[in-house]
Order: sequence, then C-alpha cells, then structure tokens
Amino acid sequence: MGKTWRAAIVGATGYGGVELVRLLLRHPMVEIAAIYSSSNAGSPFADSYPHLNTIVTDQLEAIDVESMKTKADVVFLATPHGVSAELTPKLLDAGLKVIDISGDFRLKRGEVYEQWYKRPPAQAAYLERAVYGLCELFGEEARGADLIANPGCFPTAVSLGLAPLLAERWIDPATIITDAKTGVSGAGRGLSLMYHYSEINENTLAYKVNRHQHTPEIEQTLSRVAGQDVTITFTTHLLPMTRGILATSYAALTQPRTDEEAVDLFRRYYEGRPFVRIRPAGQYPATKEVYGSNYCDIGVSVDKRTNRITVISVIDNLVKGAAGQAVQNLNLMMGLDESTGLAFTPVYP
Amino acid sequence: MGKTWRAAIVGATGYGGVELVRLLLRHPMVEIAAIYSSSNAGSPFADSYPHLNTIVTDQLEAIDVESMKTKADVVFLATPHGVSAELTPKLLDAGLKVIDISGDFRLKRGEVYEQWYKRPPAQAAYLERAVYGLCELFGEEARGADLIANPGCFPTAVSLGLAPLLAERWIDPATIITDAKTGVSGAGRGLSLMYHYSEINENTLAYKVNRHQHTPEIEQTLSRVAGQDVTITFTTHLLPMTRGILATSYAALTQPRTDEEAVDLFRRYYEGRPFVRIRPAGQYPATKEVYGSNYCDIGVSVDKRTNRITVISVIDNLVKGAAGQAVQNLNLMMGLDESTGLAFTPVYP
Amino acid sequence: MGKTWRAAIVGATGYGGVELVRLLLRHPMVEIAAIYSSSNAGSPFADSYPHLNTIVTDQLEAIDVESMKTKADVVFLATPHGVSAELTPKLLDAGLKVIDISGDFRLKRGEVYEQWYKRPPAQAAYLERAVYGLCELFGEEARGADLIANPGCFPTAVSLGLAPLLAERWIDPATIITDAKTGVSGAGRGLSLMYHYSEINENTLAYKVNRHQHTPEIEQTLSRVAGQDVTITFTTHLLPMTRGILATSYAALTQPRTDEEAVDLFRRYYEGRPFVRIRPAGQYPATKEVYGSNYCDIGVSVDKRTNRITVISVIDNLVKGAAGQAVQNLNLMMGLDESTGLAFTPVYP
Amino acid sequence: MGKTWRAAIVGATGYGGVELVRLLLRHPMVEIAAIYSSSNAGSPFADSYPHLNTIVTDQLEAIDVESMKTKADVVFLATPHGVSAELTPKLLDAGLKVIDISGDFRLKRGEVYEQWYKRPPAQAAYLERAVYGLCELFGEEARGADLIANPGCFPTAVSLGLAPLLAERWIDPATIITDAKTGVSGAGRGLSLMYHYSEINENTLAYKVNRHQHTPEIEQTLSRVAGQDVTITFTTHLLPMTRGILATSYAALTQPRTDEEAVDLFRRYYEGRPFVRIRPAGQYPATKEVYGSNYCDIGVSVDKRTNRITVISVIDNLVKGAAGQAVQNLNLMMGLDESTGLAFTPVYP
Repeated sequence: MGKTWRAAIVGATGYGGVELVRLLLRHPMVEIAAIYSSSNAGSPFADSYPHLNTIVTDQLEAIDVESMKTKADVVFLATPHGVSAELTPKLLDAGLKVIDISGDFRLKRGEVYEQWYKRPPAQAAYLERAVYGLCELFGEEARGADLIANPGCFPTAVSLGLAPLLAERWIDPATIITDAKTGVSGAGRGLSLMYHYSEINENTLAYKVNRHQHTPEIEQTLSRVAGQDVTITFTTHLLPMTRGILATSYAALTQPRTDEEAVDLFRRYYEGRPFVRIRPAGQYPATKEVYGSNYCDIGVSVDKRTNRITVISVIDNLVKGAAGQAVQNLNLMMGLDESTGLAFTPVYP
Repeated sequence: MGKTWRAAIVGATGYGGVELVRLLLRHPMVEIAAIYSSSNAGSPFADSYPHLNTIVTDQLEAIDVESMKTKADVVFLATPHGVSAELTPKLLDAGLKVIDISGDFRLKRGEVYEQWYKRPPAQAAYLERAVYGLCELFGEEARGADLIANPGCFPTAVSLGLAPLLAERWIDPATIITDAKTGVSGAGRGLSLMYHYSEINENTLAYKVNRHQHTPEIEQTLSRVAGQDVTITFTTHLLPMTRGILATSYAALTQPRTDEEAVDLFRRYYEGRPFVRIRPAGQYPATKEVYGSNYCDIGVSVDKRTNRITVISVIDNLVKGAAGQAVQNLNLMMGLDESTGLAFTPVYP
Repeated sequence: MGKTWRAAIVGATGYGGVELVRLLLRHPMVEIAAIYSSSNAGSPFADSYPHLNTIVTDQLEAIDVESMKTKADVVFLATPHGVSAELTPKLLDAGLKVIDISGDFRLKRGEVYEQWYKRPPAQAAYLERAVYGLCELFGEEARGADLIANPGCFPTAVSLGLAPLLAERWIDPATIITDAKTGVSGAGRGLSLMYHYSEINENTLAYKVNRHQHTPEIEQTLSRVAGQDVTITFTTHLLPMTRGILATSYAALTQPRTDEEAVDLFRRYYEGRPFVRIRPAGQYPATKEVYGSNYCDIGVSVDKRTNRITVISVIDNLVKGAAGQAVQNLNLMMGLDESTGLAFTPVYP
Repeated sequence: MGKTWRAAIVGATGYGGVELVRLLLRHPMVEIAAIYSSSNAGSPFADSYPHLNTIVTDQLEAIDVESMKTKADVVFLATPHGVSAELTPKLLDAGLKVIDISGDFRLKRGEVYEQWYKRPPAQAAYLERAVYGLCELFGEEARGADLIANPGCFPTAVSLGLAPLLAERWIDPATIITDAKTGVSGAGRGLSLMYHYSEINENTLAYKVNRHQHTPEIEQTLSRVAGQDVTITFTTHLLPMTRGILATSYAALTQPRTDEEAVDLFRRYYEGRPFVRIRPAGQYPATKEVYGSNYCDIGVSVDKRTNRITVISVIDNLVKGAAGQAVQNLNLMMGLDESTGLAFTPVYP
C-alpha cells in the first residue's frame, strides 16, 4: 500500500489484537503486514471475527520469528503473559522493534513480577531495556526505543488520574485508595463462568480484592512520579458492560484546595496532550464518553468535609488501555505525531 | 382474606411501592387494603403495571387520610421527599402506624436535612418520634413503634458493612471511604436523560460526588454505633443494571488482623440475624446473589500491605434497600418474627 | 418438615435445576429430599450457587437410583439429553414418579427425535408412556401419570399462542411462521463463545435457523390440537438478556376477524387457567412482565391489510418454560390445585 | 480546512445528528460548517454531548436559512417529522442541496404519508423531486440530485434483504412477513417510559404491531423492485441494546432452491457494492458485527420442509440506517466514490 512502516500482530485472536487491527487499518503510515496466532493458523482471520469479512482477507500464520523478520518492521505482541517474555529477545535480535501488550515487561523488578503473576519473570536485561509506555507521563522515552512495555488498562486510568496530584505534592501518598470498575472485555475472549452472560449480566462484583496484578504496576508508576515509594489500596470490580474502565481514586490533600484549583492543576499538567481531557468543576466523565476512542477523561472533586480529593478517570480499556496506546507508542517510537491514526471521535451513544 | 393486619400503600406507582405490593401479596399476616396515588387515581393499578394483571384488581385511590383511617391499620409511604413530612402527622393523629420509605424522617437533626435535601425538614417532634428502622442494628426500637423511618438503600448496605468494625473499634473512624455502585432502579420511575436507556446502557459514571444526601444518614448511623462522630467520604456510581447495590468500604485497621479474624467478627456480630450472610475469607458477594431478596451479603478482606480492611456489602436496593426492609420493620412493629413473608430465595440467574 | 411429598432433583447445577430448587423451597406440600449431580458430588450445593448460602445446606449427591428410591416419591430430571432416557426406566421400575425436563420423552416418534437431536431416542414403550405436560392443553392427562415429559421453553410459548387459533380453525395451518426470541439463560450454564458476555452483550443474532430441535415438538403439539398435520417455519434469535422468551407467530386467517374477536377467542379458550393472561386489543406483553413467574402472557393483532393474525406470547423460560411448569405438572400429578406454590408475582422492574 | 464541500447539520442534538458529526469529522472532502438546533442555540454543542469535548468547539446556532445559505453547500436535516417538510423548500430555493433524514420525503404519495404518520404531507412537487436514497438499489438517481430522502432504518435493512429475491422473482410477493428487532437508540434521545432504563433493560416487547410507519416505505421500495404491488406483514420489536437492527424476513419460494443458490443470488446482486456483505451458507450475521459501521450484512436459509426462504439482514441503525447512508448519499450526489469517509471497521466487541 505504499505505507512507511510494516507491522506484524501476534495474538490477533484476542480482543486486544483485533482492536489493534481495527486501529491500524486506518493508520496512514502503517500497514498490517501479517497476523500471527498460536491457534487457528492457516485459517482466514475473518473466520474468527466475521465483522472483518471483506475487510481483512489475510490468513492467520503460525508464530514464526523468521517470517516476521522478513515481513515486518515492528511487532505488536498481544500474547498471554509468558509468551511475550520468550518471544521478545528473539524479535529484538532479529532487528525488529517490539511493542508488548502483555504484562511481561512492565515491572522493572523480576521478583515483584514473580510475586504477583505467580510465574517466572522475563530476563532482567530486557526488563531494563523496556520502556514503560505510559505516553502522557513518559512519552519522551518511547522516541527511538526498540522495546515498549505497553501499560495495563487499570494502570493507565489510575496513573493518569493521580500523577498530577503526586507530581505537585498535593496529596499524601500513604493515603491513596483506588476503587476501579471495568467492563468484561478486559478479561479477553477466554471462556470462564465469571464472564458467562447469564452470570454477569444484571450483576456486579469485586474480584482479586487486594491481590490484582496491576497493583505493583500502578505503584511503580506512582512512585516514580512522586519520587518516593507509594503503596496503595486497589480494588477491581466487574461491571455488566463490554468496554470501559472507570477508576475512582481517593487521597488526603496536604492542604485545603478548591474544585477549581484542582481542575486547573490537571489542565496545566496535561496541557498539549491530545488524549487527556479534563472536565470542568462539578462534572464527571462517563465511560461511554470515550467509547472506542483513545481518550482518558478526568473529573475531580474536593471534599472539604474530609479534606480528601476524589479523582474519576475513564478510558476504553481496549483502546487507551491496550491497542490505542500501543499505536500511540508506535507513533512516538517512529517519530510521528502521537495522535496519528488515532484522532477519532468516541462512538456515542 | 382473614389476615390480621390491613396495610395501605401510598405512592404505589413508584418502584418502591410496586415492590411493596409484590412482597405484601405473599405476607401471611398482612393484606393490602388499599393503594393510593397522587396520579392516576381512579384507574386500575394494573394499567400502570401490566405485570399485575389478574393479580391486583384494585383501582388507585386519591390520597385521603379519612379513607386510610377506615381501611387500614398501617400505612406505607412510598412518596417523594416532602410529601411524607406533610402526611405523617395526620396519619399518626388518626391512630395509624406509619412506615415511611422516603428520607423525610431519617435524619434526627432538621438542619442537616435542610442542608443536604435543600428543602425544609419535617417537624422536630416527629423527627424525634421516628424510629430509624435499620433492623439489624436498631431492630429492638421498632417493636411497638408507631412511626418508622425506613433507611435509604445506600445507608443500609454501607452501615451493615461497617457497623461491626466500628462497634468493636477495629477501625479508625476518621479513615472511612465508601465507594458505592447502584443499579438504575434506585432512581425510580421518573424520566431523566441520565436514566434514558441509550445513555446509561454500556456505560457507568459517578454522580453527586461528595454531595449525596445519603451521606449524613450514613454518618448518623455510624456515629451512633461508634459512640463518636464519624465523617466519611462517600461516592455513588450508576451502573448499567436495574437492581442491586454494591458498597465497597475502606478503613484503616487499629491493629493488624487476618481475613479469618474479620470474617469471624462479622459472623459473631450478625449471629442470629436471618438476612445478613457473611462470606468465607477470600470470597465476595455479587449483587445478583441477593436479587429480589431481603439479604445483605458481606465479604471482607484485610490488606496487610496497607493495614486497611475492605468490606464489600451487597443488597437488592428495592428489597433490603426499600420495600423488604419496610416489611421487616412492619414485622418488628407488630411483634412478628422479622422474616415473616420475607423468607424467599434470590432469583438467580 | 411434615410436607406430604418428597422430591429429588437430579442435575441441580444447571439453571433449570437451581430454579426448581427456588420454587420447591416455597411449595407448601413438597420438600426437597435430596439433590443429585454428576459433577461436584460431595460438595455443598451452595458452593456452586452462593446465592443459596444459609438457605440450602445440602450436599450434592452422586446420582444413585437406590438412594432416590429411599428418599423420594418423585424425581425431577434436569439432566442433559440422553441421561434422562437412560435413568427414567430405572426410576419408574423403582416405583418413583418422574418429571423429565430434558427433551428425551417429548417426541412420540423416536425417528423424529433421532433426526433433530442427532442421537438415539429413548425406548418406544417409554415414549408412549410419557405424558406431554403442556398443562393448559393436556393437563388432564397429567393427573395420576407417573412419567411427565415437561415441554421445552419455545414449544410452551409458541403452542399456547397458537392453540386457540388452530382448535377453532381460525387460521390456515400451512401458513404458520414463528419468529422466537430468547434470553441467554435458556442455553444453560455450559460455557461457549456464543454466550460469552462480551460477544452477546449489545448484540443479537439468529441461530439454528430452520433446524432448531424444538420445531418437531411444536409441530407435534399443534398437529394434535388442529387434528391434522401442521408444519411450521420456526426461527430462534438470541437476545442480550438473561431470562425471557417472546414468540411472534404469524398465520393467514381463514376469514376476516377483528382484534376484539381475537382477544375474545383467547379469553374463552383459556378461561379458568390461572397462568395464561390475555391482553386487551392493542396491547402486547413484554417479557419482563412475567419475569420470575409462571405466567404466559399473550397479545393478538389482526392485520386487515394482509388478513393475517399476529400473536405475541411471552414466558420466563426458566419458570413456565422449565421449572415452573414442572412444578405445575407435579401439582397435577398429585391431584393438587395446579397453582399450588406457584402463585407469585413477577419481579418488576 | 481546505475541504471541498461545506455541510450544515440541522437537529444535531438527536442521535442521528450527533452520529453525522462523528462521521463527517473524518470525511476527507467535507467540513462541518455549522450546526443548528431548535433547542440550546447559543450553547456549545459539547455541553449537550460531553464526548465531543475538545473535538467540536462549535456553538449550536438557531435554525436560520440565511445563515445556512452563507455557510454551507449542503444541509443535512436530522429534524423531526414535519420540520423537514417546512424547511426543505426554502433551502432548495436558496440553492442548497438537502439530505433529509426524517420521513417527510420518503413516501411518494402524500395520502399514504398522512395515513401512517397522522400529519399533513410535504408538498407534492417536492415529494416528486426527492430521490429516495437507498444507495444499493437506486444509487444512480442520487448522482446530481439536490434533494435526497434518506431511507428509514427498518426499510434499509428489510429492503436490502428482500430486493434480490423480488428482482429475480424467486419469491411470491404476497407471502412476505418481516419480523424486525431494533436497539433503543432508534427511538432517539427523547424521554419516554418505554425507553427508561429500568423498564427496557432485561426486557423485550413488540410495538406498533401492524401499524409501524415504516411499513408503506418498505412496500413502496419492494413494489418498485418487484415491478408490482407488494403488501407485507411487518412487526417491530424493541431489544435491550443501544444500536443495531436485525430483520428476519420470510417468503414462499416460487420454486425449490438450495442455500448455496440463494447465497449465490445475493452475491451476484450486490457485486461491487462495498457495504453489503453476504455470509456463506449456514452462517448468519449478528448486529454487533456491523456496530458503528456502514455495512449491511445478510445471511439466507432455505427451509426445504416448507419451501420458504428466510433472510437475516443486520445494520447499525444510526449508521447505515441513518447518518452513514446520508453520507453515502452525499458522496453519490457529489460524484465521489460512495465509500469516501465511510470505509471503517465495525467496533468489536
């Protein structure tokens, strides 16, 4: 197609992978060169996803580094934990750039990964080499990088919501509590009773209470922004909807503030960042307002009665929480404007 | 029908009222004597609610205290805020017992009502006279009472989740944060863009952040249980489901505890109370597990990393959060077993 | 508990089975004597269904005819196709009464079963012995029977909607087309991509077009009512909701009729039947109006432009379409009033 | 922005209007010149739709033909019935091109409009002048037209599903029955109890049975394709989802056919049309597979038992059923490729 960059997608039969396909199809500078899957290799991709009929005519290919080396410049790994850790060194050795959507390269310390993921970590050298691609906070590091650890969905929403407060020392880092809510698609396409329609429709529940593997990822980011160790309480809830994350974060203010001052802080902090939108005082975002888009919308409220601040941040877990941010990282790696191919409007209603 | 008590329902065209009808129809000791509504008087109740065809053949009657005096022993007020404050004195003067499902008599201090509800409070003498009917905490006071202020849906779920911890001084009352999630039926049958299907389906949002009128009601209860003033941070979220409230409460422990000790505390505290069920350590309730029933299910988790405790409590907002607890209060008022007519199984799935 | 009849439930971990438990718990004349399951035997039933905590304390037992013989008078089979065919002769030989919720005994002709179910049929003698328990049409036959084939969910809704028209020769039997819509719970608790939340939420599709196994069951019933062979076109659609079936049936009228005449026909036909409710002309039932109840609600419309009649019939697929009708059949078998234990109000909203 | 054409949108606060905004924002040749609304004039459009924050900064303008004349080349009318009939002559006189999304110019015969819409029709001269813009059937007529009547959502799905069968005389036109299902967004943003979340969630119902105003529009199109008068039976159902229409159409075949022959017919008929996709034999489309896109996906099945054919056609009611087809018509009017600005992938899941 005459596009500049050739991308391979590995693990395209999951929801993160198929969302990458949707986004890259509209990217003006990147073409999808090949799609790989450990299952269904040899069958048309559209057999797994009929909505792609007539749009994607490619067959799924068996995972093969030599093939990727020939066909692609950059590889997106939408693979399960563990697979990325194994594939990545080979891909880098082959001279390819890698954007990993799994959790394998996000935590800098292997022992923390092992503790929360209950599996061996990737090699330390690669953990060090990986750039943690939370674009609005560390985007500069992505420019020219060859290995991006694309952030998790919860860490993206939570970290963007808390970073300005920690960076400016508005809150006491020891008091942070985040109550997160997610749609079901974050759990992927794998079957489980918990995601069986009749079980989760018209229902909600908390899960992995105090042991969600995104906790140390959030803490790593917040500690870096705060310049000191941050430990948080983090709870995740499953909601009867497909897409969307809403994170409600609470912390004690270090001094009295008003709603307007808080809005102003956030607006200054994210000035010039196209994908973070701050609501005016007294207004709070809904997940549907970012549906299908790469936005993170944020609302803040000061509770004068308790001197706490409440931050509401929302994203589409499959876009800003996965595939969209991966494309944003690609843009940064390649020296493009970060919104290239991503400047579209949420689907509403 | 030869039943012992005759009940009138005022405001039966709202969801709380129609749920009362469902429950009382199966109550062995109470008959529905008359149904009143400020709108639609003279038309069959089943015209407003076709699911009641052949079950309820009564017509709606215009609100009339004289009529109630003749026909009923007890009056359930499922009326909007303000209407209850006006009707109640007349009903009590007429010798009727009153169970008020609105917020008019829940707050003991009129000025607090005025501050949060933005309208004048009920007369002080009646605020004092009203028994706050959170059955598992103050049920003894309901026995023989003639005016019950039936608790709000959020206060029921939150207070039951936090009472054992405050009563036993396990937590620091200054650190309580509650993040609550509710289905849409809590907002009633009145139309609003916020409850328009296309707006709230596949969507979630926070609302009335730091200004929900249930905040002072929760604080009043928790203060009473704790024996000291309690101020909390309280946020409500709207979820794309019809029924159900899930409240996630966080607080700092006063000393280290284990999950098992926490479960044990809750089981002891609610021993013998038929409608509170405590999950074993590591398990958390889902709203669907109490759907259509009067249960409040609770799960607890200690986070050793932060020395905080997390409590998850769920109810059906229309049953334990409204009509079911109202019937439970009726049972207590009349000296019946509190579970009379309420011992049914959640509808699952 | 001093109840008259002892019931065993086999296959209680499916949705039909657990709904039977909900209904029988409130039945005044029947106690649940034992619960059997091919999986999870030895574990508490409430482990599979936490909403039953404190309500059902029984353990699941391994399927064992001798045990059933000792403990029960009647056995409900909520087992997969094939299992019922095998178990039933043994249970009858042991002197037990059987109500089978599977499809194994519904079709009188084994070869038709084989053709549509793609498996061998039950023994012919038992197919003959089985009473097809569509209570409003053939209820008399259930009295005193020892083997009931409980009708399928679609056949119940469709047959009740068309029977009056065929019995009174209002329609041409060669012109019947039924377009049926069902909630997801009809597919049971077994996992499948089709019932994965993220796939079927905010989605609808047709399935098993022109090859649904309920087709011959409907035709068998309609043929019997019409006194002649009836062949229909029948399509099923999956809807993003948990409970509920809505069947829209179309047929050519044999002579011009009005809406009012049609309503009148249906009211006469179902006079005295407590669970069929006919809407007035111009009104049509919604599935939620029968949610959790044993009702079948029906609306009719004559299209003068095409001389066709349209019938809308709704049921809760797990109640009137499975467990509720099974209890209704039990009542008929035992000589009780057919509504015993079933006279409850739909859960609305 | 240097784009070729300037478009005005009238009635942008409805769902059809806001979807037009989403689509036109990405159109390479058209810019949104102004947005008009009878309500909220003078306020920022993003106040009505917060998802447009930072994307659309325009204020809503009061409806004013002079302003449109100055600012725009083409006007999209996303206005209620009646308003379009009044505005359109003025706009045409002002030299503007008009694409009307309301029903005002779809029916060629004013008396039919009056009968089904219960209001006076537009002037006959304009009814005649209007091109009915069902692009895949009559797209040639749109080229160079100045007034397009954009088809209704149901007529689009139904007509595309039946046209090949009528054009090739495969079916008996007297036997057509269409059973249609729609998401709630088709009803717009106006409040009504029927679209109140707690009423329609976990619910489904038929509405406007045998009297939906889209019936004559479908018949007009089918008659034209068939070359003879066609009268159909048409029923609409409301489903608990936001977007999507699924139409199931039934008709008697004039001679025996196979599934494969039917698929082949449809593929030939729609060859070269980018937005119609035909599923292979035995496969049927789901509404989610066209979510947010301009596709119409179709599956067909022959029932040999009854010699009928069943056609399943799905669209996104707000895209191919409204705004997307309007843009497709714009493209045709302007001599552009019909898929300009519309070639995007459905949002899945």
